Amino acid sequence: MAGRDIKKLNVDMGCDFKCEDCEKYFDCNAPQKETFKKRGVYARARDSMAKIKHKILILGGKGGVGKSMGATNIAYALAMRGRKVTILDQNFDCPTIPIMLGMEGGGMRTKDEGGLIPAVGPKGIQVMSMGLILGEDEVLTWFHDLKRNATEEFLGYTDYGERDYLIVDIPAGTSSETVNVIKLIPEMSGSVVFTVPSEVSQNVAKKAVLISQKANVPVIGIIENMSELKCPKCGKIINVMQSGGGESLSGEMNVPLIGKIPMSRDVAVSLDAGEPFVEKYPDNEATVVINRAVDMIEEACGYK
Amino acid sequence: MAGRDIKKLNVDMGCDFKCEDCEKYFDCNAPQKETFKKRGVYARARDSMAKIKHKILILGGKGGVGKSMGATNIAYALAMRGRKVTILDQNFDCPTIPIMLGMEGGGMRTKDEGGLIPAVGPKGIQVMSMGLILGEDEVLTWFHDLKRNATEEFLGYTDYGERDYLIVDIPAGTSSETVNVIKLIPEMSGSVVFTVPSEVSQNVAKKAVLISQKANVPVIGIIENMSELKCPKCGKIINVMQSGGGESLSGEMNVPLIGKIPMSRDVAVSLDAGEPFVEKYPDNEATVVINRAVDMIEEACGYK
Repeated sequence: MAGRDIKKLNVDMGCDFKCEDCEKYFDCNAPQKETFKKRGVYARARDSMAKIKHKILILGGKGGVGKSMGATNIAYALAMRGRKVTILDQNFDCPTIPIMLGMEGGGMRTKDEGGLIPAVGPKGIQVMSMGLILGEDEVLTWFHDLKRNATEEFLGYTDYGERDYLIVDIPAGTSSETVNVIKLIPEMSGSVVFTVPSEVSQNVAKKAVLISQKANVPVIGIIENMSELKCPKCGKIINVMQSGGGESLSGEMNVPLIGKIPMSRDVAVSLDAGEPFVEKYPDNEATVVINRAVDMIEEACGYK
Repeated sequence: MAGRDIKKLNVDMGCDFKCEDCEKYFDCNAPQKETFKKRGVYARARDSMAKIKHKILILGGKGGVGKSMGATNIAYALAMRGRKVTILDQNFDCPTIPIMLGMEGGGMRTKDEGGLIPAVGPKGIQVMSMGLILGEDEVLTWFHDLKRNATEEFLGYTDYGERDYLIVDIPAGTSSETVNVIKLIPEMSGSVVFTVPSEVSQNVAKKAVLISQKANVPVIGIIENMSELKCPKCGKIINVMQSGGGESLSGEMNVPLIGKIPMSRDVAVSLDAGEPFVEKYPDNEATVVINRAVDMIEEACGYK
């Protein structure tokens, strides 16, 4: 075949000193970056985030692997232990956290002097999500800077007050939605990475582990979701998507495997109904795994 | 609570005549839009797309509902019927189509005179995907214009030649990755929308139906994926994610339900192995549903 092999599309790699849009942010040591971090919304976000003791990222790389389910139930389990918890939903197109907490259409409010007020859901959990203001039939198309602007408003112009935990639910991908939020939150405590057992999903979850490490956010552990299923009639264990994906990723990346959440109708029903399974189904294996994740998060944050 | 209710974040709604980045593109009737469509990459894409008879969008809104599985197997089934098929993978962060066709690391090539040459996979299927050039350990962070630039290169500067079908796999969300590609492809023949049975997923799939209709791309039908599962030992039907989501969305939106693909280990294994199930497992219910989708696509495109 004629032509030359290429490794990258023709993306301009020069520096224009616009750190907010730079794809090389985490690799950069230029002095301009330090100046940049002290200005404007970055300074505001730093002040706001200083009042929240611990910040946890929920990642997965791939869509549909259980990130929002995990973020909701981890937040809820923390709140059941008496922690003051805030969830930041970075999914702007198709947010589901408000559904999973029974808060759809709850609205968001602004302060008279400007800035946003988080919505408050069950167990006093604060929620910031576009799902609070998007109608069911409304389709929002976000272009480039709009998502960044929204992230900046959520972090720099929202009054969270004093909190114990911020749980950040990151949508699929490794692009701006992920990177913008990490840039704005100094000193994150750690991340939890979700995968499903298939090799296709592991391949993508590996990128989530890599981006967390690149941004100096330690990976607390991996959760394999939609793992094997037990037939409710005969008890047979059915591996729909093969098995062992979580273990193999854990071994390859040298990151703990927190546990495996089996496929379960109770989990699906609880998410649709807006009733977190960690409270509704305390004996479900999903609850056991989420509680183990919460133990590991609390330990990483100096509690226990 | 103090303050006023808000419906939108502070997004500038003025027209700056930059149609390529406009979130109101499909609703706009300004004469500038017609001028815009005749220029530059839009004109190039129009010429290139004129040589491809039919263009089909694969949508879902939510991640992990089977869009790439569907795109791969629909393309493969069309190729088995003798059609010349091209797949355009719009997932830039975590592309999986090359894995599902056994083409990872296959590379992409450029022509000496500039422009890209699509990779050719099994059954002569042309593939354009970032997964051809991304290493397994490589994490690409795409910022705003980069994805649009890549879409423009894929559509305006790639030599596909004469083809019967272009199958476009759209990632999760309703944002620029979806809208940019629809803008660049005049007269799309139709879309197929994937959902899983849960209400959370339907809620998002509905947005995919809406965006397709808004862009004047008729929805050919809905496929419910990860539907009920039959225990291989005792034959019990297990509804992991509740059931009937596809029917209810189909009824609500007045769009045909193509069929339901049960959870199946064969499907998962075939995707990981890069061997499309429409050939490897001809009797699997997944194959039956994909073939029905292909019948409906061919009918919508004037064959048979």
